[in-house]
Amino acid sequence: MADLNDRILALAGGVGGAKLALGLAGELPPDALTVVVNTADDFDHLGLSISPDLDTVMYTLAGVANPETGWGRRQETWTVMEALGQLGGETWFRLGDKDLATHIERTRRLRTGETLSAVTRDLARRLGVRCAIVPMTDDAVRTIVTTDQGDLAFQDWFVRLHCEPAVRSLHFAGAATATPHPVLQDPPDLRGIVICPSNPFVSVAPILAVPGVRDMIERLKVPKVAVTPIVGGQAIKGPAAKMLAELGHDVSALGVARYYKGLIDGFVLDQADAGLAPAIEALGIEVQVTDTMMRNDLDKRRLAASTLDFVDALARSLQHS
Amino acid sequence: MADLNDRILALAGGVGGAKLALGLAGELPPDALTVVVNTADDFDHLGLSISPDLDTVMYTLAGVANPETGWGRRQETWTVMEALGQLGGETWFRLGDKDLATHIERTRRLRTGETLSAVTRDLARRLGVRCAIVPMTDDAVRTIVTTDQGDLAFQDWFVRLHCEPAVRSLHFAGAATATPHPVLQDPPDLRGIVICPSNPFVSVAPILAVPGVRDMIERLKVPKVAVTPIVGGQAIKGPAAKMLAELGHDVSALGVARYYKGLIDGFVLDQADAGLAPAIEALGIEVQVTDTMMRNDLDKRRLAASTLDFVDALARSLQHS
Repeated sequence: MADLNDRILALAGGVGGAKLALGLAGELPPDALTVVVNTADDFDHLGLSISPDLDTVMYTLAGVANPETGWGRRQETWTVMEALGQLGGETWFRLGDKDLATHIERTRRLRTGETLSAVTRDLARRLGVRCAIVPMTDDAVRTIVTTDQGDLAFQDWFVRLHCEPAVRSLHFAGAATATPHPVLQDPPDLRGIVICPSNPFVSVAPILAVPGVRDMIERLKVPKVAVTPIVGGQAIKGPAAKMLAELGHDVSALGVARYYKGLIDGFVLDQADAGLAPAIEALGIEVQVTDTMMRNDLDKRRLAASTLDFVDALARSLQHS
Repeated sequence: MADLNDRILALAGGVGGAKLALGLAGELPPDALTVVVNTADDFDHLGLSISPDLDTVMYTLAGVANPETGWGRRQETWTVMEALGQLGGETWFRLGDKDLATHIERTRRLRTGETLSAVTRDLARRLGVRCAIVPMTDDAVRTIVTTDQGDLAFQDWFVRLHCEPAVRSLHFAGAATATPHPVLQDPPDLRGIVICPSNPFVSVAPILAVPGVRDMIERLKVPKVAVTPIVGGQAIKGPAAKMLAELGHDVSALGVARYYKGLIDGFVLDQADAGLAPAIEALGIEVQVTDTMMRNDLDKRRLAASTLDFVDALARSLQHS
């Protein structure tokens, strides 16, 4: 069994990933958790460099996230957006006043030549986050959604068009030439890898698309566990279920487990989907059934603890295999 | 005498210039006033393109200026700045939330290749300004203050260092290659030119430093009137008096009139300085003595009306000369 100080590497997108990351941060010493975050949703808007998933994870871990939306900051105001609307500016992507400070400061620093990793580390520290939050890469990778209305930049599809155009395929522009974050090139001794309950196609896939990352994960002899983002055939949040259907997958936790086949050793399945366990086990993936719904901070801690127990149990069976 | 529909071209910097511009806007039909604004105070800060004088004039003419400070917007909030401070960002240049919307939108449009003139025209229109506000040039001109502590960018000297370092000289980087705004290249028929009570050295001089502008003004056979920015040896606002002293001028309205000699036909002198009238007249400059203090909107209208009367009186004497 891995030493308890060995690290957990968690792969996360936005809201769902951030919730489990918060649970993991509660269960682990600060230096034992590294959250690798998708940056393929990042975009330039209003002249600002916006990193929605990094910010959702950062705000959540800092305890300043908006509990209603899951994104943005709590006790937010919208004065800049209102004034921008008065000036004829674009307001379809809602940026609160406090949140804007993050984008303004990040943009300023990136322009001075700092890396996204360095800026993220400092902003997170300033907000009181103690574990490591790292972008999957410091290079620009951008999700392009090929739809029945043509190719769309991710936020155009996701926010401006409310995910409505049917998805035919996805690609991650810039991924092929991106350099993974150092922690993905040369990971420390790991207790395990946790794929958070994030969208497999637009949150996790971009991380895996950065050259070497998927290979590194497949090669490592540590437990790799995914937590389902689908319960009862529905996504907890976001367009994962719609994407499963439109991309020809089973709209279920089984569809997700199949998608991760070859990458993971274990799958955390919601109790509502317990009936899918045999089919997932038939893929050669161990299953842990639990309540995966994270309604409050206690739920997040409980799911994190259960996931870590599963990781450790898998470590024991890996040792015996 | 010029037709009343002929235009007034007003040269303005920030607060004092904006006040008289508001008075002029009250006295003139909208299409009869063009306010040419100094842009040498403009700077890039927090990754944003900030045009302090353009904004002060625009907010003042739109009736949304902060009446306490003279700059920024009324009923302003400071949420972004506070959040930025929490993130370790630079907060020495105070940007309110509503004001930030202006900078964000201007910066975004400039990056798409729009000119500062075009952006200013549209923002002003959106805020309800009916007369024309134009930057002296669409090119970057930047005031550099040579001080006893070395060369400083204008806002560094003005805001960050509170005008404290003694001024030895000023220059306007980029002015020599700047193209004046079209209205300064080929002015319409003018009733007269008004140099607002702005700082002669850092608000008016940069406008005159754009190639061709000073020549154009000198050449035009229309009345040119400056309104004193100095009353009783003091600047109404800002460092004009300090600069007069440090640059070796008389610290008085007379010092200002001497500085404008050759450029202007008339000088509007405050009643407190009536004793200086003969010395200014000895320079070949006509003098109008009035109350130049603009404490409220009525004062602004009254000073504007008095200045326009002076312009028209000078037009009559120019016709007879």
